[in-house]
Amino acid sequence: MRTRTIWWDSENRAIGMIDQTLLPERLEAIEIETVEGLCEAILALRVRGAPALGAAGAYGVALAAARSAATDPAALLQEVQRAAEIIRAARPTAVNLSWGVDRVLRALDKIRESATSDADEIRAAALAEAESIAEEDLAINRALGNIGASLLEDGDVVLTHCNAGRLACVGWGTALGVIRSAVAEGKQISVYSCETRPLFQGSRLTAWELSEDNIPVTLICDNMAGMAMRQGKIDKVIVGADRITKDAVFNKIGTYSIAVLAKAHGIPFYVAAPISTFDLERSEKDVEIEERDADEIRRLGNKQLAPAEVKVYNPAFDVTPLDLVTAIITERGIFRPPEMPELG
Amino acid sequence: MRTRTIWWDSENRAIGMIDQTLLPERLEAIEIETVEGLCEAILALRVRGAPALGAAGAYGVALAAARSAATDPAALLQEVQRAAEIIRAARPTAVNLSWGVDRVLRALDKIRESATSDADEIRAAALAEAESIAEEDLAINRALGNIGASLLEDGDVVLTHCNAGRLACVGWGTALGVIRSAVAEGKQISVYSCETRPLFQGSRLTAWELSEDNIPVTLICDNMAGMAMRQGKIDKVIVGADRITKDAVFNKIGTYSIAVLAKAHGIPFYVAAPISTFDLERSEKDVEIEERDADEIRRLGNKQLAPAEVKVYNPAFDVTPLDLVTAIITERGIFRPPEMPELG
Repeated sequence: MRTRTIWWDSENRAIGMIDQTLLPERLEAIEIETVEGLCEAILALRVRGAPALGAAGAYGVALAAARSAATDPAALLQEVQRAAEIIRAARPTAVNLSWGVDRVLRALDKIRESATSDADEIRAAALAEAESIAEEDLAINRALGNIGASLLEDGDVVLTHCNAGRLACVGWGTALGVIRSAVAEGKQISVYSCETRPLFQGSRLTAWELSEDNIPVTLICDNMAGMAMRQGKIDKVIVGADRITKDAVFNKIGTYSIAVLAKAHGIPFYVAAPISTFDLERSEKDVEIEERDADEIRRLGNKQLAPAEVKVYNPAFDVTPLDLVTAIITERGIFRPPEMPELG
Repeated sequence: MRTRTIWWDSENRAIGMIDQTLLPERLEAIEIETVEGLCEAILALRVRGAPALGAAGAYGVALAAARSAATDPAALLQEVQRAAEIIRAARPTAVNLSWGVDRVLRALDKIRESATSDADEIRAAALAEAESIAEEDLAINRALGNIGASLLEDGDVVLTHCNAGRLACVGWGTALGVIRSAVAEGKQISVYSCETRPLFQGSRLTAWELSEDNIPVTLICDNMAGMAMRQGKIDKVIVGADRITKDAVFNKIGTYSIAVLAKAHGIPFYVAAPISTFDLERSEKDVEIEERDADEIRRLGNKQLAPAEVKVYNPAFDVTPLDLVTAIITERGIFRPPEMPELG
């Protein structure tokens, strides 16, 4: 079984990735041989999730270098630079995508300074940096998972939302990484996965990846979380985060409702997120909440679920104030708000 | 515009109804000319909602009488009796369906006692009782709506869940009836409709019927209710009820989460339900919660949303304890729990 979402295929000099649009119906790896192919995969959400996109950007630059016919270092670098811009433009709002691209470019800047470098040395350096980024993501998630596992007891039933799993990362996952680490320690953990309307990441991705790992999972609609808590079915909640400001956690829409319900039922509410998620210079009011297309709610495939012209409110994420958060699990330890990690 | 969900078409001696399975794509009335056709319509959910099913059962008995070729009163009554059993069996757990059937049968019992009655008199009596049931439902909803409208202020934004509208009744509706009555009084009311997974009654039916009536409606996914409340978008919540016991309100799954969220945000939570919904001899523990088919959550049409074998928890309704209910709106007045109506 594959344990990585995205990887370098050195034999074919290509990026390999799980095509997430085919899940849960089938698990299929695709080979990406061109920068255009990578952009298509990003746009079509074959790869998604902030850490996975960071690796995708980095591998994309390495791919451009590997596939270039240039023999002259300067020509190669120019080609790589053009590719970098094309990749960044695929999803300009995905901060991690640019971050991955830029980290490889910076590594190449250092090579360029040594006048003796040839084109193959540049190719090797690009790939080495991309592989580092992917390995670092795995190491961070493993560390975060091991730290967070201390919060889970044998027999716990954990509710999660959306997909903060290995499919959002290079591997292991953040919220689901904590669960995987606890299971690896020999604890019996089972999971309630909220389906996560409107895009069903909980049913399509989380339910799939936990099933693959033989971790018991029960799928529910988002509106069943309260009932499951009231019936005593849930011991803990763990979710991921898109961004953590000084006063709030931004995460997939639906997270805030779950946090309020958890508090009302005395259930711990944990957020699992790497240090790179923290944005402690900002507060809730500085962050704009993106609204997504109305037809995500009005239609599904070719099925009309609602009147075609009905008004829709479709925020992509919501805001959970820190007083609803029991603890934030990071690769540097567990922080209980208002306590927060020191950054920089 | 049709204002009734189900009616008697005297010209064609048939039951007319809106085919709710075609909504929201198109509004189409169907003619039901046989008891078998009625059973099919009930099973396929072309007609649904407790009060509407009561009328369907009653009209079904009237239909059997109207279409019978019998000239002898005893033969006709025997035929009607057989039809009644077939109708009841279409959805044995739908209490209102049997209730509607039985009320017409009881009316015929009285006729039978007068030895002078002929077959046409029996036909007329069956139809008259069915029409009474339908008219009573309309009158109850109008009364309930007018009473509840006093709770709504000009400019209010009301959140609702599922469909407690005219499509669930013969007309007007309960939760949506309160909103209609307030609008009829000249108040500006707008509505947030939760889509109501897994069967989308909020998007398919509530959003449709409010749009038809030009009442401003915004559709959201169920998991957005908390965020909408936190942003101050919601003034009041009004939902319907399937059953009200001495300690709790049973209603469509998702209602309880909304009630907890409303309390956390200081938003009044109202239940609109006719007196026939009260079951004050029982308490929460006496009522079993029906679990529905897993594929309602795992699939939509021919689309696989989750792994085909994943475990699912799919309760049809949930339980809201009375301490989360600000008031219950009935045709006999407004009751603020623990205050409850005197029954019997």
